[in-house]
Amino acid sequence: MGTLGEHRNEVNLEKRGSFFRSFRSDLKETFLPDDPFRHLEHQSGCAAAGSLVKYFVPVLEWAPKYTLAKLQADLLAGITIASLAVPQGISYARLANLHPIVGLYSSFVPPLIYVVFGSSTNLAVGNTAAVSLFLGSVIGSEISPLESPELYKHMFFKAAFFTGIFEATLGIFRLGILVEFFSRSTITGFMGGTAIVVIMQQLKGVLGMRHFTTKTDVVSVLGSIISHREEWRWESAVFGTCLVILLLLCRHMRAKLPRLFWLPAIAPLLVVVLGGLFAYLIHAEDHGILIVGTVSKGLNPISISHLKFESKYHGVLLKAVLISGFLALSEGIAVGRSLATMKNEQVDGNKEMIAFGMMNIIGSCFSCYLTTGPFSRSAVNFHAGCKTAMSNVVMSMCIMVVLLFLAPLFKYTPLVALSAIIIVAMIGLIKFEEAHRLLKVDKFDFAICVAAFFGVIFFSMTVGLLASVGLSILRALLYVARPTTCKLGNIKGTEAYCDVEQYPDSVLFPNILILKLGSPIYYASAGYLRERILRWIEEEDAIARKGEVNLQYLILDMSGVTSIDNTGISMLAEIHRYVDRRAIKIALTNPRIEITEKLKSSKYLDLIGEQAVFLSVKEAVEACHFTEYKNELV
Amino acid sequence: MGTLGEHRNEVNLEKRGSFFRSFRSDLKETFLPDDPFRHLEHQSGCAAAGSLVKYFVPVLEWAPKYTLAKLQADLLAGITIASLAVPQGISYARLANLHPIVGLYSSFVPPLIYVVFGSSTNLAVGNTAAVSLFLGSVIGSEISPLESPELYKHMFFKAAFFTGIFEATLGIFRLGILVEFFSRSTITGFMGGTAIVVIMQQLKGVLGMRHFTTKTDVVSVLGSIISHREEWRWESAVFGTCLVILLLLCRHMRAKLPRLFWLPAIAPLLVVVLGGLFAYLIHAEDHGILIVGTVSKGLNPISISHLKFESKYHGVLLKAVLISGFLALSEGIAVGRSLATMKNEQVDGNKEMIAFGMMNIIGSCFSCYLTTGPFSRSAVNFHAGCKTAMSNVVMSMCIMVVLLFLAPLFKYTPLVALSAIIIVAMIGLIKFEEAHRLLKVDKFDFAICVAAFFGVIFFSMTVGLLASVGLSILRALLYVARPTTCKLGNIKGTEAYCDVEQYPDSVLFPNILILKLGSPIYYASAGYLRERILRWIEEEDAIARKGEVNLQYLILDMSGVTSIDNTGISMLAEIHRYVDRRAIKIALTNPRIEITEKLKSSKYLDLIGEQAVFLSVKEAVEACHFTEYKNELV
Repeated sequence: MGTLGEHRNEVNLEKRGSFFRSFRSDLKETFLPDDPFRHLEHQSGCAAAGSLVKYFVPVLEWAPKYTLAKLQADLLAGITIASLAVPQGISYARLANLHPIVGLYSSFVPPLIYVVFGSSTNLAVGNTAAVSLFLGSVIGSEISPLESPELYKHMFFKAAFFTGIFEATLGIFRLGILVEFFSRSTITGFMGGTAIVVIMQQLKGVLGMRHFTTKTDVVSVLGSIISHREEWRWESAVFGTCLVILLLLCRHMRAKLPRLFWLPAIAPLLVVVLGGLFAYLIHAEDHGILIVGTVSKGLNPISISHLKFESKYHGVLLKAVLISGFLALSEGIAVGRSLATMKNEQVDGNKEMIAFGMMNIIGSCFSCYLTTGPFSRSAVNFHAGCKTAMSNVVMSMCIMVVLLFLAPLFKYTPLVALSAIIIVAMIGLIKFEEAHRLLKVDKFDFAICVAAFFGVIFFSMTVGLLASVGLSILRALLYVARPTTCKLGNIKGTEAYCDVEQYPDSVLFPNILILKLGSPIYYASAGYLRERILRWIEEEDAIARKGEVNLQYLILDMSGVTSIDNTGISMLAEIHRYVDRRAIKIALTNPRIEITEKLKSSKYLDLIGEQAVFLSVKEAVEACHFTEYKNELV
Repeated sequence: MGTLGEHRNEVNLEKRGSFFRSFRSDLKETFLPDDPFRHLEHQSGCAAAGSLVKYFVPVLEWAPKYTLAKLQADLLAGITIASLAVPQGISYARLANLHPIVGLYSSFVPPLIYVVFGSSTNLAVGNTAAVSLFLGSVIGSEISPLESPELYKHMFFKAAFFTGIFEATLGIFRLGILVEFFSRSTITGFMGGTAIVVIMQQLKGVLGMRHFTTKTDVVSVLGSIISHREEWRWESAVFGTCLVILLLLCRHMRAKLPRLFWLPAIAPLLVVVLGGLFAYLIHAEDHGILIVGTVSKGLNPISISHLKFESKYHGVLLKAVLISGFLALSEGIAVGRSLATMKNEQVDGNKEMIAFGMMNIIGSCFSCYLTTGPFSRSAVNFHAGCKTAMSNVVMSMCIMVVLLFLAPLFKYTPLVALSAIIIVAMIGLIKFEEAHRLLKVDKFDFAICVAAFFGVIFFSMTVGLLASVGLSILRALLYVARPTTCKLGNIKGTEAYCDVEQYPDSVLFPNILILKLGSPIYYASAGYLRERILRWIEEEDAIARKGEVNLQYLILDMSGVTSIDNTGISMLAEIHRYVDRRAIKIALTNPRIEITEKLKSSKYLDLIGEQAVFLSVKEAVEACHFTEYKNELV
């Protein structure tokens, strides 16, 4: 192919630098995408060390700047979330078949740890419905909560301890990248499915039943409800329905009058208090309405001595730790991030993981089970106007007061009231509009969401999660295996070359085939790309022969290719041999720096000649025309 | 951002068509990348049916056009590969601890089937060292070949039967895409490691030992050799070394004189014949040189009645089928493809899978174990000048003659001769230059290769293969999770905008930040891209402020983005909200058709406005300048 003499713009084919430099930069992009230490570089040793400590212990950063105005805001937010934390803590502990008091314990210690290490200003710490139900079903499958309640409870602390270590480890090694494989579609489907499953579980409480399955799928739960129908109590059902309606009314009023933001936050506590009063007055137990029973006063007992590791249960523990760890992290980080963007703040996912890890490790020594930053509580915290993580301390103090003085009052709380609270909280997690949006924009996303949803409903939470993440990974692999390639044409009156399918009016040259290669050109896609390119050449050849010209030039636009491997380069060499035998000349345009390096060291550029690499498609096309013109002269 | 009035080129933001059309086209690109039925569209019903039958049974295509000249070439090639097939067949069967005759059986029936269904003209069918060793070690771990030789043998037929079904199924459902995940780097490392392991195994034969481990890793093999050192026989070792030197000499001569291509092909047979004669004359058995022993005359016995499925061994069978299936397919398809490109022919991977499947299903009914298209035999076939698959028939006929009349003559073949043949064949599979090339061009490819190599040597063939494929998949996932993004600058005197890292002289505008986004924008990369873009804005802002201007425009070049999902679109919306609050205007350039569709249906384009989408970076930059100019006028 002819060169254009002085008109030609040089393509940079130089190497980027040493292997170790580019390796270091790749590592940095992979594990430190947010480059958290970039401000340290301009500081002296001592100041840098100070910044580093502040980076890992954010409280040192914000506590000195804490003002009275912020305290006022945090006080209000803290009291608001405490009034939600008490009934939710109790309810979710029941969901895990734990004694309600464990739920209160778990809202006392972890927030105090989070406030030291956490970087989010909006997150409210506590136990969540999904994790509670998951842990209950996994641990319950090995240890019966009725037969050996102590062992069952200690397994929860153990799980929290190891999950904490797991979370902190991921954070320290900056493996936040793993959590990114839980897409929004997965979370939407999983949460929706979990909400349905949790609501089904509550039928036990609403119907006042005493026997129930430990499985979570809809078929088992419905079967269990029907087979024990002699336990159904209408009094309980009527009472429960009234409470659900009351809670929904509060939520509805808030939707009408936004300044009543505290109403849905306070409503669960109202339901607990009213329900307890009602149960006390009418002696509910005699009418088939089950109550919580004795709740003893006092702060968290120390549970560190129960963290012994028994090999008998290591399978269950491993499953519980891995899945609940990912669940808790992805919920906590997603909540933190989405609330932060509304305030134009940044949340460092890896730092959050360390904070979650620390609070669970320390929490598990004080009778707390797994906690994270739940959706509902954090959103209430945000809307109540919290300014810093201090609102968690306020909440924790409120819970302390409850534990020290008010706990026995919960004795008369009807189980049906807790079920009503859970049901209403869960209804908000089923997002039909979101699923509809997924369907409209991207069918594959919808499939990922549906897999999680039905997996959870009909099989188990583990199956739903794995199926959905598996589909997500399949999608990523399919993307790599089938890069999009298209034929380019010139947009009239410009120098731009675009997809001819998208711009059917673009100008084509009968003897030049211009292809924009997709990325990456890897082992997994090389075979496909070869077939696709050969097919294009064949088609183009047929068209050219109709116009009685020969296909003479193949221009490969490499501007979109960001990565290539040895198999990919061999494929390009194969294509070169193929077109060479048919007297078609090949040209590359605008290869990226990562590509030129490899094309050069693999000697591919020697094969096609460095003069066959152009800066833009326009220049390559001009060079083709120039060569033709020269040929005509000769 | 201002529009350019009449100067502006319209960006096509229309939809591509119905969901089902694009879904169909995606499916086609995924499973039918070579579009094998494209010629059928222009044919009438009857002719199309004929073409379809010919597509699946290629012999109908080429047999009618078969000429005498072709037969001559195929005869020569067939006899050449037969002379290689006899000693190789026997040797590799011994590698699997099978009776040598099974190796001959396996070179008789499968080639006859392949000739009907196969689409490669160069492939020579037979058993291979890697698969034989793998099957021997996997089946041998459950069933002892010494204690229950019949059961052991039948397991090989069963494995071949189910592997055949597995291969044909992959082919029919066009899942050739799965085999593409075995990259060249994996194959290089795996073959090198296997060669070393196989050579180590041959020390048994060379040293004339009777007891040996069934494990394949180097440590076990060396341990076994040393612990049984009382069995070592120097006569056997000396004889073996002489034969290895003889074989290497033949190969060396061929490298010097290319027209002696038949010499390395005929050499193994020569070694078998000379070795047998020598052993017969000196009564080798009495001198510690082990011989093959009785080999009975006759064609393949029918083994269909032994294909009963016993649940006891289903674990072993499953492992054997899955891994040996992938091994056999990837070797056969890679060989077929690489030889075909040298002749400018095409090989359809999925069709080959069906052919391999058919030959193994039918072969397993006639006492054949797993066969594929081995490297060495196919290369000899190619160099001997084969024209069609008919050379396989010639080879098969030669093997028939051997089985019917000459088999008993192999009685005196010394085992050490077989070991020498295997050793020399294996030396050719250790490709240090290839590994060095991988290291030079792409470090990750080298790591994939090394993982397979050391996995095979120090653990097992399964571990090596899985570790290597695991790394390959990790690479693909990392690619998706960390798309390359770069900042663009204008190349002086052109309309091109390129990476400023690659072209440090390119022109930058202080108030405009131009970023080329990497692809894909998925759940796994959205978090990373957000961090990276925000970091860029921060950096650019710092630079702009030094020059006392404000960053006003953010241009995102989407031309390289070929796929986006809901999480990705949310990320773009987040970026928009972020820059909007800082009064920075956002523009997109040249979004591809797949992207515009989704940006439109997700209402993202309503957010930024359709006038903020430009055809090229040049136009977007011009629009920015135009707006500024207008602002100055006002």
